[in-house]
Parts: sequence; C-alpha cells; structure tokens
Amino acid sequence: MDLLSEPHHDGSPLYCSTQAPELGELVTVRLRVAEGDPATRVWVRTTYDAEPIYREAERADSPTGRDSWWEATVECHSPMTHYRWLLAADDESQRWLTAAGIAEHEPSDTFDFKLSTHKPAPEWTKDAIVYQVFPDRFARSAAADERPTPHWAKPQEWDELPSYEGTDDRTWLGLYGGDLDGIIEHLDHLADLGVNVLYTTPVFPAESNHRYNASTFDQIDPLLGGDEAYQRLAEALEERGMHLIGDLTANHTGDTHEWFKEARAGDAAASAKRHWYYFHGEGPDAPYETWMGYPTLPKLNHTSAEMRAAMIEGPDSTVARWLKAPYFLDGWRIDVANMSGRLGAIDVNHMVARIIRRTIEEENPNGWLIGEHNHDASTDIDGDGWHGTMNYSGFSWPIWSWLRAETTDARPFGRPVAVQRRDGHATVQALKEWRARYGWRAALQSWSILSSHDSARIRTLVRDPKLHRVAAGLLFTLPGVPMIFAGDEIGLEGVNGEDGRRTMPWSRRDQWDTETLDFYKETAKLRHQHVALREGSLRWAYVDDDSISFLREHPDETLRITADRAAGTFTVDAV
Amino acid sequence: MDLLSEPHHDGSPLYCSTQAPELGELVTVRLRVAEGDPATRVWVRTTYDAEPIYREAERADSPTGRDSWWEATVECHSPMTHYRWLLAADDESQRWLTAAGIAEHEPSDTFDFKLSTHKPAPEWTKDAIVYQVFPDRFARSAAADERPTPHWAKPQEWDELPSYEGTDDRTWLGLYGGDLDGIIEHLDHLADLGVNVLYTTPVFPAESNHRYNASTFDQIDPLLGGDEAYQRLAEALEERGMHLIGDLTANHTGDTHEWFKEARAGDAAASAKRHWYYFHGEGPDAPYETWMGYPTLPKLNHTSAEMRAAMIEGPDSTVARWLKAPYFLDGWRIDVANMSGRLGAIDVNHMVARIIRRTIEEENPNGWLIGEHNHDASTDIDGDGWHGTMNYSGFSWPIWSWLRAETTDARPFGRPVAVQRRDGHATVQALKEWRARYGWRAALQSWSILSSHDSARIRTLVRDPKLHRVAAGLLFTLPGVPMIFAGDEIGLEGVNGEDGRRTMPWSRRDQWDTETLDFYKETAKLRHQHVALREGSLRWAYVDDDSISFLREHPDETLRITADRAAGTFTVDAV
Repeated sequence: MDLLSEPHHDGSPLYCSTQAPELGELVTVRLRVAEGDPATRVWVRTTYDAEPIYREAERADSPTGRDSWWEATVECHSPMTHYRWLLAADDESQRWLTAAGIAEHEPSDTFDFKLSTHKPAPEWTKDAIVYQVFPDRFARSAAADERPTPHWAKPQEWDELPSYEGTDDRTWLGLYGGDLDGIIEHLDHLADLGVNVLYTTPVFPAESNHRYNASTFDQIDPLLGGDEAYQRLAEALEERGMHLIGDLTANHTGDTHEWFKEARAGDAAASAKRHWYYFHGEGPDAPYETWMGYPTLPKLNHTSAEMRAAMIEGPDSTVARWLKAPYFLDGWRIDVANMSGRLGAIDVNHMVARIIRRTIEEENPNGWLIGEHNHDASTDIDGDGWHGTMNYSGFSWPIWSWLRAETTDARPFGRPVAVQRRDGHATVQALKEWRARYGWRAALQSWSILSSHDSARIRTLVRDPKLHRVAAGLLFTLPGVPMIFAGDEIGLEGVNGEDGRRTMPWSRRDQWDTETLDFYKETAKLRHQHVALREGSLRWAYVDDDSISFLREHPDETLRITADRAAGTFTVDAV
Repeated sequence: MDLLSEPHHDGSPLYCSTQAPELGELVTVRLRVAEGDPATRVWVRTTYDAEPIYREAERADSPTGRDSWWEATVECHSPMTHYRWLLAADDESQRWLTAAGIAEHEPSDTFDFKLSTHKPAPEWTKDAIVYQVFPDRFARSAAADERPTPHWAKPQEWDELPSYEGTDDRTWLGLYGGDLDGIIEHLDHLADLGVNVLYTTPVFPAESNHRYNASTFDQIDPLLGGDEAYQRLAEALEERGMHLIGDLTANHTGDTHEWFKEARAGDAAASAKRHWYYFHGEGPDAPYETWMGYPTLPKLNHTSAEMRAAMIEGPDSTVARWLKAPYFLDGWRIDVANMSGRLGAIDVNHMVARIIRRTIEEENPNGWLIGEHNHDASTDIDGDGWHGTMNYSGFSWPIWSWLRAETTDARPFGRPVAVQRRDGHATVQALKEWRARYGWRAALQSWSILSSHDSARIRTLVRDPKLHRVAAGLLFTLPGVPMIFAGDEIGLEGVNGEDGRRTMPWSRRDQWDTETLDFYKETAKLRHQHVALREGSLRWAYVDDDSISFLREHPDETLRITADRAAGTFTVDAV
C-alpha cells in the first residue's frame, strides 16, 4: 500500500516553525498534500480555553519543490495546545487530519497534534544513543576479587548463565560481581558503538543483584566500588564527552532501607519517618503498602513533605545530591514512574514528576528526566514532569510483533501471553497511534527499546541475526532516542528479563555476533551523521505484510528507510 | 455489514454488575462473543496505580440463552478505573476489545472501558426527557402586555420571524415578550409530549433577549414575571412531578452586572470585586478578559475565593440560592462549562466543576449538573464535576452528518463549513468513538440534542418530515437523555441558532406538523415504557450507507431499532 499520497503534518522542522514554543507564541504549521489532492480550502482547528476555533490556511511555497503545501498559524494559548487540520473540497467533502492520520468521521481530540510550551528535553539529547548497563553483569574489575561476599548473596561464576525461574532465589541473589571500574575499562566498546550516554540501573547498596530495593540513597554500593568508583566513572565519561544517567526508585525503597527501618520500628509518635511510607496501624508489625505486593519493596508516601525533601525536592534531596560535584549525573531514569505518587484514590504523580524535574533543573539546567511507564504514558509526558518515557508501547511491542519468530522461547513481559506476530499494517497502525497519542516531541524525547533488563532479549524473540539487524535498523531510524541494552549488540540471548541479564563475554569474543555488532556501529554512525534520522519528519511510504518503508525528511536532506522481514533486509537511502 | 458477530461489552446492566461502584469494589464484568468465536482464553486488563494488570476471565452462563459469555472481575482501585478485554485463540492470535471495538493492533488506553466511583447522576435522570425553552420565545401570558419595554429592547410581534443576520441588532435585542407564566399555561403540551424536565435558558435580568449577559444573579427578570412567577412555575412543575433545570453562565457575566460595574469603576485598592474579573491594569478604562472578545461578556476569575463564594461555592452562592425554597431548582446546566476557569496558563476548570457539584449536592442530593461543551468533554465528565455534557459531538454531529439534506440552508455551528453528509459507516464510527471516549455512564448522563438555541433546527437541516422523524427516533432510542428544543416537535425551522429561536405558534395550529408531533409523543412514550431504551446495552447490528440497525438489551427485554435514510423509515421491534 503506497501511503505517500496521504496528506501529512507532524511536529518536525519541515512542518512546524519551532520545536520549543513559548506561551502565547504564534507557531507556523504546514500541511503537505499530494499534487491533485481535492482540498481547495484548509483550516487548522485548535482550542482557546477548550473552545474550538478555526484559522484558515493559505497556500504556501513548497520547501521541497514537491507536492502542494498549506500554511497556517496556531497560537500557543495554553501550555499544551492541540490542533488538527480540516481539508474541504469543492464537492463539500471534508477530511480531518490528526496525528493518527486521515479521519473520514469526526474524531475526538484524542489524536490531535500537540504543542508544549514547557521546556523541551536538553539539546544534547537529540543526538543521544543510550547504553543500558546492569552493573552486576557488565564487567568485573580486578578489585572485585578482593571484596567479601555480602551475607545475602549467592556468588556466581562470570561465565555461568543466570537463573531465571521464579522459585530459584539465585535469580535475585546470584551475584556476578560486575562493578563500576569494570565499566570504565570498557568505555572504548561504548565509544566504538557510537554510544554517548551511559544509563546504569541502580548503584545504591541493596540486598539483591538488581538493587531496585535500596538500603540507602546516600552512598554508592561498596560492592560496585563505592563513591570513589562512581566519581572515577563520571570523570572517565566526562573525558570522552559522554553523559551519565542514574536510576532512581521514586516509588519505593527496600525494606532494608535506613528510612524504612526507622519508620517501621517506631510508630507515628516515635518516628517522624513513619509517614514517609503507608503503614496501616501502629507498631512494627503493622502492614504497609508495597510495590505490587512485595514486602521487600515498601511504597514511599509522596504526600509527606519531609520525605519529599529527603528524596526528590530541593538541593539536599537524593535527586539533587548525585547531580552535584563530583558525580555530575546528567539526569535520572525514574523507576516505575507511572506508579510513583499513585495509590488508589491518592494521585500526586504529576506533582512528583514536576518536583523531580524542578530539582534537576535547579542543579543542572541540561538534565534529562525519563519516566519508566509500562504502558500508556500519554497524559504524563512532555509537560513540566518527565521529558519522555521508556517507550515500550509505542516502539518495542509494535516492532516485536512484526519481527518475532513464529515460535520463540521469549516470554511475555507484563502480560499473560506473548506479543502476537502481526503484519506490517497492524505494526504501522500501532506505531502511528502511539506517536499520535504521545505527541511528536514527547516521542522524540522518549527511549526506543528493543530489549531491557526487564524483557526478553530481541535476539531470542526474532531468532535470526538478519531480523535482529532489521530491528536494530528500525531502532536507529524511527523517531525516538535509541537505547541499547548492553549485550544486544553482540547477540546475547534471554527468554525474559532475568535470563537476559547475562554477563558480557569479554573473554569469549568467538561468541560475539560481530556482523550484528558492525551493523549496530554503522547504523548508529548513520544516525549521528544525518539530522533527518534524529529530528526529521516521518512519512510512511509503503507497507504490506512483510515490508515497511518510510521517509525521514529534514529541510537539509531526505532519507528513505526500507525494512523487509521476509527478506531480512534493511536499507537506508538518500532520496 | 452484519456486526452482531463482534465480541461485545459495555457498561450496561447486562455486562456490568453495577452502575455505581464504590472505591475498592470488585465489579463483575461480562463479555459476549458469538458462537464459534475462536477465543479460548480471555483476560480483562486494568491498571493498578497506572500499572497494567490482568485477571483471567472464566466462561459464564449466558444470561440471554444466546452466544458465549465470559466473566471476570475488575477492582475499582482508583476513582476512575479503566479496563479492556484481551481475547486469545489457540492459534496464538489475539484481539483487544475496547469501548471503540475490536483492535487488531495494540491500542493506547484511550478507548478503554471506564468505571467511575464518583456518585452517578441522580436516579430520576435515567427516565428524563428534557425540554429546552428559550423564555422570550416560548409563550406570552396576558401579563406581558402590561410590562413596559426596557430601554435596550426592540419589541417584536409574536408572529414575526426573528432576525438572524449578525449586523442586525434585533438579533439580540429583538424582544417578543415570552414569560414564565406563558410556560405555565402550556405545561399540558410538555406533559402530552412525555417531557418531565423543563430546562430554560437564563432567566436573570440582562440587556438582551438571550439573557446570557446577566445584570444580576439575585433576582428573576421582572420582564419574565420576576421571582414570584419563577416560584409559580416551580410549583406548577412540582404538581406535575416535573423537574426544573436552570442555566448559569459560570464563565462570565454581562458588563451591566452589578459586580462588574463595581469592579470596573474602582481599582484593586478601591473595590474588593476588582479581582472577580481579569482586568489588565487599573482604572475604569483598563482592558479586561471576555468571552471570545465580546466586551459585553467579561470573564469571571475563579481563582478569587470571594467571587467563588458569591457565584458557586457554599450555601450563599448563586448556585445554591435557586436550589432552595421556594424555587427548588433540580440542577443547573452550566453555560460554556468548557471555558469556565480556563484562561491560557490558568486552568481551574475541574475545581470549578467540583465546587459547583458539591454546592448542588449540599442543597439537593438529587441535583443534576450538565456542563455545556462545544467539542470534546471527555476529560471533564463523570468525575466529581459535571455529570454529563450537551453531547453535540457524540450525538448531534454524527446524526446530522447522516441525515442532512444534500443541500440545505442550515448554517454551520462552531465551524467554518457545514457538517458533511456521511454514510452509515462513518456515522456509526463517530457514535462509537465518542461513546467510547466519554464512557458508558457519562454518555447516558449527557444530553442528546437534535437542535438547540445555538444551532440550526434539525428540520431545516434534513428538509424532510420523514427524515426529521428518523432523527427524532434516534434521539429517543440511542443512549443518552433526549433534549428537545421547544418547537422541534412541531417542525419549526431555523438556519442557525438565532433563526431557530422562533416563537411557538400557539395560535397557528395549522402550521404544526402534527404527524411529527405524534411521532415525538409515541417515541417518547416508548422510551418511558422500555427500560432497555433508557439503560440497556447498545449493540450495533447492521450498517450500510443508508441503513443503521442496533439492539438495546436489558436483562428484561431486547429491542431492535432500525433507521433508514433512503426510505425515511424508523422502526422499533421487540426481539
């Protein structure tokens, strides 16, 4: 199905005069229609304090020398302004164009285009390629051999496969001993790959290998090398011009956390920290709210101003502390951001996001804030909170559904059944709907993900190096910031998150899929070279069951990307 | 296209164990699939503090003796809980069912089914049929002859057609002299029609015939008979078991309003009321915010607690005052509710709605609150604010688009071009999408409208008595509360809102379309008789360009409704 005859608009520079409008600014928006399109009058419809208003568009010169163009202005009357196009023909027929495409009926405002006058993500993130490291599994420095095994841990050999069955406590207690100096030793690998942002999962002390159950936020885990190693890592990254993003559990701590131990021991009278969590009743045995029923993960109470001051708000908070010298974190990825500040009838999630954002901006105006969201983050992003999300729904699942093998050992993540294998049409429809719902800018500010420490590995899902490379090609060329889970680039496998947390086989290079590694390097390089891949518009060009083709267009250049799952091919061509 | 083989769920009693869940309640939800549907496992997916969770459904007995049924539970963990169905087949194919229908891709949460634990609209509204009266045009009592013409008015003869061209100031100053005793004299007409709710547009004094520019909220316009006549009207309605709904401009007053005159004359130092509006600067000539640029309609500032106390909040407010003895209003329709409390970066709209709702409930726990919204009210309704909206987008425009004449003098309302004539498929798609976006309960609590004082008359739009009756049939049989704009039932015409504000020709019965009037009476009666038409589920049965058929099903009965625009027929049959 040829799609290029469809009218098109999106939030990119070719179609929108600014990516960062101010409140009250008049933004010029452009519409492109094919030669011979029946539209003879065109309006842009926006709202003014929720009342629909129309501005008529005028014909405009084609910035590309092709097709017919219309131009109108939208006033950013509100912090989030939405708009859509109405195309009328001489025969009285009308079409609406929203971010979800052409509607032949009168749609709701759901998929309207969006302009946010909130500050965008920092400029440097536009060229970001993020590399996710799970510290226990990435690399082990010689110093690790000297460290005593903590009481809770079950030591593992580096070359052992991780345990991933729920009943085996090695799954969360099996310790491989990767550390921060180990990461420093392999920064060449990241640089070769084209990576310029290191995101590590948590590095605070915790009684598990994943460290999402922190015992404190005041120091870096000595098992990882402690504060000094974190400082060394920050400096090594700084020398290479790379950025560092931390991982913070704003939703909960571990039950071994110093705050929780104090809160639990006392009652509301004895401990000022009792209200930092949600206890039901008094005394040390009182039940308390947790993350999804896990008693080791007590839920934080963000309605407590004292807790917020310790955790997220102001210069002495955990959020601020690690952005300061000598660590200079460049931002945070917030764990289960979707649930943070939400508990039944209590919902202070947007306040939590806004406070974290403000705290970050006060310490580092160029800080980045990504909120993890397991499904639909549309109402939570591109405001004054999270810049973007880990875009599972709008990127991972559509790509997974198109490229997954007929049969695979890959297990579902967050659902009772595997992602279904779907054709190109359903895939493009999902990609379109989610980008429409999130808005152009929020989608660009979000992380595109093929695998993470929580999911199966893409390689296990597709079971074919060629299809793995098709997936990686889409990772680097669709809008959004590519995030590579360490090891994907050499073809590591894993049927689920725990299994995928395999150690990097530094000493077993023969096991690396170097063809795929080279493909990652080349395609990452292409992304760094071409502004169209980073910021260009997205027009769907062609789709059938097995083939997807799209254009990334920028005032300076146009690229055509074609992916074919049957042939296992992926190409990028200048147009 | 036969649609009955599609899996179905909605918020009605056949599919949902309660219409008014409490926070924390486990609601039983049911899914119906055709015999032979490939689904072998079914889950309901909801979220828990924004995290997706799944509960597996079990096969259930068929409450209708037909089709296959599944049953699961949804916990109302949050005040607004959303959910959807996942249907998996043995061949690993999966379908999602949301309120918008079956999705073959993975959709966003946009059209999820919804459960609201906020109090529903009062029970009596389920059987409501609302009659809208524009007081100057409905009926004139003998007392009207005795009243002096106010200085601003241009007297009109009752049988004259209203002026509706924008440059003619008779459009808003032409006074016909209809009054409240005139309404009392014709309550038999309402009763015969099956109406049980009278909604009048504003009755406060104002220097216009529409009275949306109030001079005070403290008395009823003496031109209408004053407070005593309003009391007589309330008593006459009470005797007949009818309800009375007022119309309040929460967004603005007239520039002749006593508050505004005081506010304007002084400056912030001199007048405590200066901040009840949005003045830019000091002194009587300072510019101020208005409704859509009209200087006669200064916008109220709801961030002022003093203004709120006078207008909407607490027992001494305007909202409360008219709910008390001796008037006993049964609720309010809030004019431009969408804009109230919204001004650029300021948005206290939900606070305004919540306060009005609370004030109403404190005076009258059975009060009804409808917010006017010109387009997409989806994020504003069925919470703790407006119960529902005037459902132009989800009812009027789809029905208009299906039934409008090829050419018509009817003018657009709120848009630069007429509603396009569309086929049955696009019509049903619009009806589905809007009901999905609003949620089942909010749609039932909203007003379905064929015409209003703001729009063209349905008769002028369809230009055919038969098609007028098809429209009226859909008004009474689709989910939602029917609102009849006085005069529609006898075939009054009007090319726009102003033209449609024609006087009721009480003395010219020969001009009445009595066949249409009888149809209104019969179909209204049908609605009162059949719970399925009021509260039953809605399943689309068949659609093609010219024909639409659907079932309204209730545990007690099933009705099949068929409308055909080519034949001009409308039928309701027991199934």
